[in-house]
Amino acid sequence: MTRVELYQQILKKQSYLCVGLDTDINRIPKHLLTLEDPIFEFNKQIIDATRDLCVAYKPNTAFYESLGAKGWTALEKTIEYIGEEHLVIADAKRGDIGNTSKMYARAFFEQMNAGALTVAPYMGVDSVQPFLEFENKWVVLLGLTSNKGSQDFQFDTVNGEMPLYEKVLRTAQTWGTLDNLMFVVGATHPGKFQEIRKIAPDHFLLVPGVGAQGGDLKKLSKYGLNDHCGLLVNSSRGIIYASDGEDFAEQARAKAKILQEQMAEML
Amino acid sequence: MTRVELYQQILKKQSYLCVGLDTDINRIPKHLLTLEDPIFEFNKQIIDATRDLCVAYKPNTAFYESLGAKGWTALEKTIEYIGEEHLVIADAKRGDIGNTSKMYARAFFEQMNAGALTVAPYMGVDSVQPFLEFENKWVVLLGLTSNKGSQDFQFDTVNGEMPLYEKVLRTAQTWGTLDNLMFVVGATHPGKFQEIRKIAPDHFLLVPGVGAQGGDLKKLSKYGLNDHCGLLVNSSRGIIYASDGEDFAEQARAKAKILQEQMAEML
Repeated sequence: MTRVELYQQILKKQSYLCVGLDTDINRIPKHLLTLEDPIFEFNKQIIDATRDLCVAYKPNTAFYESLGAKGWTALEKTIEYIGEEHLVIADAKRGDIGNTSKMYARAFFEQMNAGALTVAPYMGVDSVQPFLEFENKWVVLLGLTSNKGSQDFQFDTVNGEMPLYEKVLRTAQTWGTLDNLMFVVGATHPGKFQEIRKIAPDHFLLVPGVGAQGGDLKKLSKYGLNDHCGLLVNSSRGIIYASDGEDFAEQARAKAKILQEQMAEML
Repeated sequence: MTRVELYQQILKKQSYLCVGLDTDINRIPKHLLTLEDPIFEFNKQIIDATRDLCVAYKPNTAFYESLGAKGWTALEKTIEYIGEEHLVIADAKRGDIGNTSKMYARAFFEQMNAGALTVAPYMGVDSVQPFLEFENKWVVLLGLTSNKGSQDFQFDTVNGEMPLYEKVLRTAQTWGTLDNLMFVVGATHPGKFQEIRKIAPDHFLLVPGVGAQGGDLKKLSKYGLNDHCGLLVNSSRGIIYASDGEDFAEQARAKAKILQEQMAEML
């Protein structure tokens, strides 16, 4: 999906919501467990219930990998089921030496047809470049993450100049473009969005941490939105585990609808 | 595998070699391609040919993921085939927020029974901690990587004090112990091993970059070895692709043997 297409979807749906598919076999409703592929069945119903309210889905690969090959198959089926109208962000936090990143790119962009992949920056340019070589695919590079551990290294001042996360944002802009590079910025740092928009005014930001992690949608949107939206705000647990009963999809839709309506106001 | 058991294996085999299983369907001998699971068959023969010469195997997950669910199955079968006498290092460069790292830990330490997992440090303590909670399992944290991109962030001076890789090595030592934490230090920085042994004198280091990437075994061993060895030196492509003919396993053994003999001298 191109940047223009993504923005068109955002305008059409009045939403910059990304639904995170952190599908945990231990948390999905019990009545699904007798089915052949409960993970896929859960995702399918969540997707059907939220399709018109969001522009992206973000399956978190860890949850699928924890089930071995059958989890991987459920992930493949999920991505295929989502289809072409939504950006599929494989949240995999990959990144390795060049020949290996190339293999990860094949895994997610070819074998699986995801539209975007989250990538970790620590190994630098040749760990990221192979992903950027795929047409109409996106790297979503970790900038400032939503978790407590973001304090350990990301805020450290590097070379007396700027925090590490800022250097990552600035350096990576020399590797990719507005059309193939986004950044992860956690919703748990709402006060940082103003500053981040000075560093990366035009890039799309993927923002996790609304919902279970406590981030504030309105606050981050106030400073994070730009003239072509520029935000994809993710909620996972807050939406998909709204209920553990037979009404789980309906309740997920209700939670997604609340966020979508707030987003429509902000746009 | 515990640290003591690992050291016992090193003494017994006179080797601190790790064989990297970066098994690429496009590079394995053509005669294997007609078999039902060529990737596993290739690994099986490599393992049989090198078992007595090495103490660890390091399957690189990217190569398996690039084949989808069937690649994942080949990886599972490979790890099972290696068995308990070798440390299996899943080279996956994972790391995410706590609840997600916990899922990755389950994927590799429970579902797959790997003994160790490579982990990326950018997201800090809560992205690493869940892996450290598994008994007799190892985190192999990226410190100073072997690739060109290691220059982008890892050498930056943080807080006017030390390079980022040094801060990672020092900080992570407060998270894990000598018995559950190793560090990745690339063989392409042989001049750094003396300094790194001041920062982390007793930890095991996993050293990639010998062979295809050009690292020098003798030079790095001179400063890297400590009183319980403390090194696992990996070679992947240099061993497993020594030949693309029917003699591939025999030629791989010959290459592994050269490294093992150099290691016996160094020990």
